[in-house]
Amino acid sequence: METMRWVDGRLEILDQTLLPETAEYIKCEHYETVCDAIRRLSVRGAPAIGAAAAYGLALGANAVQAASREVFITAVEKIAGDLAATRPTAVNLQWALDRMLETLRGNTNDNINDLKKALLEEAHAIYREDLESNRRMGEFGQTLFPDNAAVLTHCNAGALATAGLGTALGVIRAAHKAGKNVHVYADETRPLLQGARLTTWEMLQENIPVTLLTDNMAGYLMAQGKVDLVIVGADRIAANGDVANKIGTYGVAVLAREHNIPFYVAAPMSTIDFNIASGRDIPIETRDEQEVTHIAGKRVAPEGVKVWNPAFDVTPARLVTAIITDRGVARPPYIDSLAALAGKE
Amino acid sequence: METMRWVDGRLEILDQTLLPETAEYIKCEHYETVCDAIRRLSVRGAPAIGAAAAYGLALGANAVQAASREVFITAVEKIAGDLAATRPTAVNLQWALDRMLETLRGNTNDNINDLKKALLEEAHAIYREDLESNRRMGEFGQTLFPDNAAVLTHCNAGALATAGLGTALGVIRAAHKAGKNVHVYADETRPLLQGARLTTWEMLQENIPVTLLTDNMAGYLMAQGKVDLVIVGADRIAANGDVANKIGTYGVAVLAREHNIPFYVAAPMSTIDFNIASGRDIPIETRDEQEVTHIAGKRVAPEGVKVWNPAFDVTPARLVTAIITDRGVARPPYIDSLAALAGKE
Repeated sequence: METMRWVDGRLEILDQTLLPETAEYIKCEHYETVCDAIRRLSVRGAPAIGAAAAYGLALGANAVQAASREVFITAVEKIAGDLAATRPTAVNLQWALDRMLETLRGNTNDNINDLKKALLEEAHAIYREDLESNRRMGEFGQTLFPDNAAVLTHCNAGALATAGLGTALGVIRAAHKAGKNVHVYADETRPLLQGARLTTWEMLQENIPVTLLTDNMAGYLMAQGKVDLVIVGADRIAANGDVANKIGTYGVAVLAREHNIPFYVAAPMSTIDFNIASGRDIPIETRDEQEVTHIAGKRVAPEGVKVWNPAFDVTPARLVTAIITDRGVARPPYIDSLAALAGKE
Repeated sequence: METMRWVDGRLEILDQTLLPETAEYIKCEHYETVCDAIRRLSVRGAPAIGAAAAYGLALGANAVQAASREVFITAVEKIAGDLAATRPTAVNLQWALDRMLETLRGNTNDNINDLKKALLEEAHAIYREDLESNRRMGEFGQTLFPDNAAVLTHCNAGALATAGLGTALGVIRAAHKAGKNVHVYADETRPLLQGARLTTWEMLQENIPVTLLTDNMAGYLMAQGKVDLVIVGADRIAANGDVANKIGTYGVAVLAREHNIPFYVAAPMSTIDFNIASGRDIPIETRDEQEVTHIAGKRVAPEGVKVWNPAFDVTPARLVTAIITDRGVARPPYIDSLAALAGKE
């Protein structure tokens, strides 16, 4: 099942809010539908958001009627602004849009149709490269897994969060394929239950053994010696290695350190934001209170209660054992190792 | 709203599984109905389970037809065994039943009706004493609160978990009443959402400011300096001060230590099990997988997924700043301080 696909000049996005019960694609004819799909988390996961935004921009650009190259570019920039505003934390969104706009600005062609084609091709390239990036992360990362690895993961950093095999789950898949006898423990990941709904679903489909637990059970599981390593994805990584990821990641990292369990982050280079020195500067999205007060459409908390609902938290670099990228594995100090990886190629 | 009440020779138990939407009492004519109410968490919280079991035993005893004192005692012991088997972790259950049986065995009266009356009176005494115990814990505990205290709590250790004002929430109520301007942060407490459903409800009713968060947000909240202290209840405390409490408590305690936040446990002396040396020996209940795979009756995880669902975890004494009891505040080393409190009176 593909997270998204380009069919007959439009983008189809798998509506992950309906999984695992229903697998249904949202047919996006207009870029506003893509904005909406990103906002309501029909498509989520930093690399997947990046690819969806790129396709969204290509889709929006296709509909632009412009008399000149300049007018066209201005219109496309406006669309990119709308797409960028959908979610603040995952940097892959801005990264993909910037790359699309650079392609456009760097193309000196005056034929608007050719520019539209170039944009679509760039979106396809972003999608394809993410696939390849996942494969490489899997290769680098699986070498860190011992045999018979019991692996805890938080949220869904899987195929559904990317164009390919996943970041954290891509590494797990690679370790499984290498015959390492992996057992996955999946935090359910409140409020939106990406672990319960998506991670377990992906693992079951590939017959990778998986056990579901609520987020607050992770500490007790570790205390019983049942976790060999933790691996998660990331929404944005600062230059110093601080990691913004799904809310609850920080707590898992503190618990992993308490039990001397390695804590790995798997993310493509496009998730690293070298413009940001530390996690303190990463914008953290706060989402609707209903995500907490309601579950599966049913109210579970009394009317009138105040809610705090940050979608992400920041794990300081000192709690991160290694960052697995598509260019290799970075070790502390990350300020040097990440920069070195960025300089590669 | 009372957690339970004795009306017209039967026990009425507030069905907490329906809160906060519906406030409905289960009318228990037979002790088996009480067993069932405890098993399905219609009544929960260590002290409340103890009181409910005591009333359950009085109810069961009332129905016994026995020709002799000995036959009566044997029948009541059988009922106590059934009640004790409902849940394994909260020691107050066994404590209350032991106390009831001692009352019975110590009563040399041969009149069965008098013995039945004595049992009911002992159940009333256990209920009344819990109320008074809550008041005393509140008094001792609130002295530990600074002004403008931001307090994180996990699960519901409130009026609904006791016969009175609550253990942890009893202390919070006392601090509020003392004008300390308390703000409560309530972990929702998956899987059964006692924090979201019960703690927030209790706090809203008394106009104590409360903010709801998912369990996995506690770490990020602490990292932002927003928590002054943590206070929780307990289901069983070992002689060395290790604390069994609702699953997730251990993770909160590790996070509190990481942020140098005091971590308090409030529990009556009846929760301390001096027969158990350390938390390693506390039996931890594992509950039905459906509590995790379903929320509010709706399946949220794919069919066939394995689940781990321990209802409690153990927080080692080294992470506990103080234990607030109804006889005073115990500080480490608990092996001495708890024993000293037990010797009091």
